[in-house]
Amino acid sequence: MELYFNKVAVIGVGLIGASVALSLREKGLCGTITGCGRKEENLRRARQRNIIDDYLLDAADAAAGADLVVLCTPVGILKDMAAETAPALKRGALVTDVGSIKGLMVGEIEELMPDGVHFVGSHPIAGSEKAGIDDARGSLFVGARCIITPTWRSDRAAVERIVLLWQAIGGSVELMDPFRHDEIFSLVSHMPHVIAYALVNAVESIDPECIKYSGAGFRDTTRIAASSPELWRDICMMNRDNLSKVLKLFRENLDRIEKCMAENDWAAVEREFARAQKLRMSI
Amino acid sequence: MELYFNKVAVIGVGLIGASVALSLREKGLCGTITGCGRKEENLRRARQRNIIDDYLLDAADAAAGADLVVLCTPVGILKDMAAETAPALKRGALVTDVGSIKGLMVGEIEELMPDGVHFVGSHPIAGSEKAGIDDARGSLFVGARCIITPTWRSDRAAVERIVLLWQAIGGSVELMDPFRHDEIFSLVSHMPHVIAYALVNAVESIDPECIKYSGAGFRDTTRIAASSPELWRDICMMNRDNLSKVLKLFRENLDRIEKCMAENDWAAVEREFARAQKLRMSI
Repeated sequence: MELYFNKVAVIGVGLIGASVALSLREKGLCGTITGCGRKEENLRRARQRNIIDDYLLDAADAAAGADLVVLCTPVGILKDMAAETAPALKRGALVTDVGSIKGLMVGEIEELMPDGVHFVGSHPIAGSEKAGIDDARGSLFVGARCIITPTWRSDRAAVERIVLLWQAIGGSVELMDPFRHDEIFSLVSHMPHVIAYALVNAVESIDPECIKYSGAGFRDTTRIAASSPELWRDICMMNRDNLSKVLKLFRENLDRIEKCMAENDWAAVEREFARAQKLRMSI
Repeated sequence: MELYFNKVAVIGVGLIGASVALSLREKGLCGTITGCGRKEENLRRARQRNIIDDYLLDAADAAAGADLVVLCTPVGILKDMAAETAPALKRGALVTDVGSIKGLMVGEIEELMPDGVHFVGSHPIAGSEKAGIDDARGSLFVGARCIITPTWRSDRAAVERIVLLWQAIGGSVELMDPFRHDEIFSLVSHMPHVIAYALVNAVESIDPECIKYSGAGFRDTTRIAASSPELWRDICMMNRDNLSKVLKLFRENLDRIEKCMAENDWAAVEREFARAQKLRMSI
């Protein structure tokens, strides 16, 4: 199966969108790349840096005639972007995304696609608290896990092409049910973000000045609290049930440690810490 | 004031102890360095690598005749080590430590010192989840904040020498009351450790296999959960009142976010995230 796209549209040119563009280019997988986004200044810079060949401010215009459309907007507007571009998509076009939320939305976007156009959801695990094109690079997905979320509706050939696409730019691909995806990522990604935000807010509510005493431990633990509040608000909103479930489990684990401390059961505290250490060291 | 120590004893040759030894040597601040520790194999390796000149398994023997004694053991046995070495200390010896806990203990160790021997507490903010000599280096303290905790009992000349010592090996020194030290570090260090342990345990209690899907965010957020359970049990024990207070504040902040989520008040969720982002980006 030849993997080449004459025309690619990247809708949302941030860290991930720009890195997808650079990756496709570096691997010679595409002809021209059209960018689309809300901020013209950003698109102009992306063109200057040869990340994209040209840009259009209207998503339908950008996607018209494209062989591959990669939706890289924040998840909060992903479905709207799919709906906007759908009428303009040409028969045979392949559409994917890079969002951190799958679940229901994958099916909803699939249903928006016109006949002969296939959407297959993707989630490359390569984000960062950084959001702009300055940190974009063609090697961002090399060695990165990339979850592909087909459904019963998915076209098999389309799924295969999306798998090959991510593999071609270095990703380690895994297929997964979209609902299972959201369960897992509520645990290993969405919950840690909420906790990091709450942790920094605890410092803020006690004494913001104290932050100057933070060492590498605090800095790493809270790095993701520098992430976009708007993006993470949407992710939390779209995955709230799973998130609420795993936060409950987090609380139970924190309660257990605090209870042992209050009861002066330090052997039990050590066991709790050791349980975490063992799993953490397995990464 | 000349800063040179003919004989140095480093009690506890782990990451910090070995780095202190390497730093002193590289700056030409000392004659011989004697190491002391529980594991002879580790001491032998430290001698082979020229981190120390020789070693003794008995702390009093190692400290006898030393001009500078640096207590680098885990905080849980720090006071015992001070008590063990005290009778052997020669008049004029300077004693310091590198522990993450100060508070009451500083005064207790001061009282253990024989006449003419001065203890001044130190806490270089340069730890890591790593604990061994393999990661030790003479540049570990360059640019690192180093808290010195004098009390009303402290000898002024001794405090000055300890300040000069840490400055000489690159530290950025700040004097602080030992109780204030424990308040601040419960917030920016001890609490994040407890939370990181609880976070990994939440994953463990739901599905340990999920950890393979973790990205850089999870890995950074939980890096410190790979820290020694024994060491952190002791730190939590010794700072439990402050820790319990700040964990309460953390819970309140997490509660607030979850309450907004439950009430579908996503603008308020975004405000909470933005509050954290602002402070975090100020680091």
